[in-house]
Amino acid sequence: MKNMKAFIVAMMIVMVAAITPDCMAQKEAAAPDAITVIHSRKSVRNFTGQIIEKEKLDKILRAAMAAPTAVGRQPWSFVVVTERKTLDALKDGLPYAQMLGKAGAAIIVCAIPEKAHDKMVEFAVIDSSLAGENILLAAEALGLGTTWTAAYPYKDRMGHVRKTLNIPDSIIPLNVIPIGYPTGVDKPKNKYKPENIHWEKW
Amino acid sequence: MKNMKAFIVAMMIVMVAAITPDCMAQKEAAAPDAITVIHSRKSVRNFTGQIIEKEKLDKILRAAMAAPTAVGRQPWSFVVVTERKTLDALKDGLPYAQMLGKAGAAIIVCAIPEKAHDKMVEFAVIDSSLAGENILLAAEALGLGTTWTAAYPYKDRMGHVRKTLNIPDSIIPLNVIPIGYPTGVDKPKNKYKPENIHWEKW
Repeated sequence: MKNMKAFIVAMMIVMVAAITPDCMAQKEAAAPDAITVIHSRKSVRNFTGQIIEKEKLDKILRAAMAAPTAVGRQPWSFVVVTERKTLDALKDGLPYAQMLGKAGAAIIVCAIPEKAHDKMVEFAVIDSSLAGENILLAAEALGLGTTWTAAYPYKDRMGHVRKTLNIPDSIIPLNVIPIGYPTGVDKPKNKYKPENIHWEKW
Repeated sequence: MKNMKAFIVAMMIVMVAAITPDCMAQKEAAAPDAITVIHSRKSVRNFTGQIIEKEKLDKILRAAMAAPTAVGRQPWSFVVVTERKTLDALKDGLPYAQMLGKAGAAIIVCAIPEKAHDKMVEFAVIDSSLAGENILLAAEALGLGTTWTAAYPYKDRMGHVRKTLNIPDSIIPLNVIPIGYPTGVDKPKNKYKPENIHWEKW
């Protein structure tokens, strides 16, 4: 009887030990899946003012550079701003980027025509845009909020961004993406419209 | 003794019942997380020839329309081709899209300047490019392979795509994205370059 009791208790311990760590590992790894993140991404214009961890900015930049580019040219660069006075200087010339005031950081995606396939502006802009979408999605995946505020193709906005950040005239500052911890008031929109889909032919 | 044995067996059953379903639910939900998908996406040029489930195409199209657009204009449409003869007809005029021969489907992202913010071609192209990146990522998340093959800005390629799919002249067929089940030979590249990052200023 004593042996049997000891055996059963031992078996119970083994069972729990076998099931639990696997379960816990899965719980830790439960980052949101890609399609959920694509749908939960939204333009966030209300930030808490918290600073952004450098580790998270690094993850976002790595995601940016994972985007595809025409003929593998990678015609891009990224300016990352975290200093308050530079964020404010950017804000002063960009009426549609006022959320920079409470952003913890901003990334400026820069398109470089001379590096693009056949040195075409179109590919520099498209390739850099795909990197930009990766930035928005990676930030969302990390619990951060963003908004793509356009610099290109507006001469005055591009001029202000170039001047504030010392960006050469040959480089296109595509956008300014403020990044911050969201207050929670901004929500994703459902933009699904079946009439935008043409099956087989237009 | 008999009571005790029955009690311990009952406890074991309760324990397993309590732990296992939670664990299994997590296993089922373990779709790859967004940042993993961003890094595992690659240009897939080798397909098995399998057809693509309509349910998966629908998920991909919903992901496409979740991309942000300038001033919320959604200046896009999507042509989805699954018929073999149309895939072959597209292939015949697109030397860089020969993988259409074994693709199960293709999506053509169409940019619509007249719907874009201020009717600007630039925003039609950028907004539709972001939708395109969502297509590549959603496909990867669903176990499918894609390659962005450019139509825009090449007049001859756009002409061929328009003619094959009855797309009006006012619409820009941005690309042809063949979609298929990958054979497994295509691998993602590491394109991370720290020299592409400028901290605080250029």
